[in-house]
Amino acid sequence: MSDLQLQRRGLLCVVSGPSGSGKTTLCRRYSNADPAAVYAISATTRTPREGEKDGIDYFFLSREEFESRATRGEFLEYAEVHGNLYGTLKSEVLAHINEGRDVLMDIDVQGASLIREQSDPAIREAFVDIFIMLPSEEELLRRLDYRGTESRDQVELRLGNAREEMRHWADYRYTVVSQDKETDFTTFSAIMAGERCRSSRLTPCEDAINQHPELGL
Amino acid sequence: MSDLQLQRRGLLCVVSGPSGSGKTTLCRRYSNADPAAVYAISATTRTPREGEKDGIDYFFLSREEFESRATRGEFLEYAEVHGNLYGTLKSEVLAHINEGRDVLMDIDVQGASLIREQSDPAIREAFVDIFIMLPSEEELLRRLDYRGTESRDQVELRLGNAREEMRHWADYRYTVVSQDKETDFTTFSAIMAGERCRSSRLTPCEDAINQHPELGL
Repeated sequence: MSDLQLQRRGLLCVVSGPSGSGKTTLCRRYSNADPAAVYAISATTRTPREGEKDGIDYFFLSREEFESRATRGEFLEYAEVHGNLYGTLKSEVLAHINEGRDVLMDIDVQGASLIREQSDPAIREAFVDIFIMLPSEEELLRRLDYRGTESRDQVELRLGNAREEMRHWADYRYTVVSQDKETDFTTFSAIMAGERCRSSRLTPCEDAINQHPELGL
Repeated sequence: MSDLQLQRRGLLCVVSGPSGSGKTTLCRRYSNADPAAVYAISATTRTPREGEKDGIDYFFLSREEFESRATRGEFLEYAEVHGNLYGTLKSEVLAHINEGRDVLMDIDVQGASLIREQSDPAIREAFVDIFIMLPSEEELLRRLDYRGTESRDQVELRLGNAREEMRHWADYRYTVVSQDKETDFTTFSAIMAGERCRSSRLTPCEDAINQHPELGL
């Protein structure tokens, strides 16, 4: 008797949220905890810092190479920040999701919106977006201040940016209203576990299709 | 400073699966464990059995009343089984979901497909469907046999029905490949937790809209 087991394709999970929402921690913790998940490695034109390794911390590209690959449409999204280019290579993401691994990215609302507009069917099918929302203005201020050593102006700037990011929660399939680190991680993990059960990303194994034609739709 | 808290509307979670998949146990256990979830009470024309209470075990209706309410479109779905009518009243489900409670129903693939075709926007928005799949033909046989005292013919009939149900897994948003009771319950709970974070079912509280116009989209 044969197995009816269903195989799944990987997810591309894009996580946004205001500064202080803990989105980076969530992505890193989840990808560290789960062998079937990886944190997306960005490409950048900036110079490696001491100890940074190509292919581990970033893919370090020359400006020429970055721009020519961008022109060829090889990036899911990219942006210039303080004179350096940063972006996510489509090939890097597709390699993982085709092997059933989930790719996690934390990215701002502009970057997320570029990925949302991708027409590649493999990317669209894998795409899941999650917004990490703060429960109150008070909590936003508290978390922004926690960063420490900035001037009042710098805090005001970050507050304005955070409010602007928060306008976009409803563009995301999921919104997690942040509570504490553990609760947020549990909720985040639940969303991932649920998305892994989406029928649209499951395919019957070949043996099962041969012996159970009803499974191959 | 005001709360940015988002309120959610309830889910209508429809669960199907072959005989032996444990769908009823999952729905009952989840609704018992979570105060924000209820197990849908069906209406029926059959005579109450000893100890059964109207409004708790079933809504007991006369055939005339059932049929006239069915004609008025008051049922989400209904079917005749062994000469008795069984169905789910739309009003019963809507009352719960409007108050933010999740309604769980286990129902066969025909019933689920009737609910999936509902045009009422409140039902469509709340709707989530989950299929509980068995991992192998061997496991299906094992679970069917476990029921005990049936003849070979009865087991064959149930096996045929189960195979027919299993053809429909891909019609459901989620498919849980059943492992053991605890794992299935964890996965089921994760799907529910994830669906509770769907942005499309969240609305900012009124206070938050007044003070944070960016939230009211």
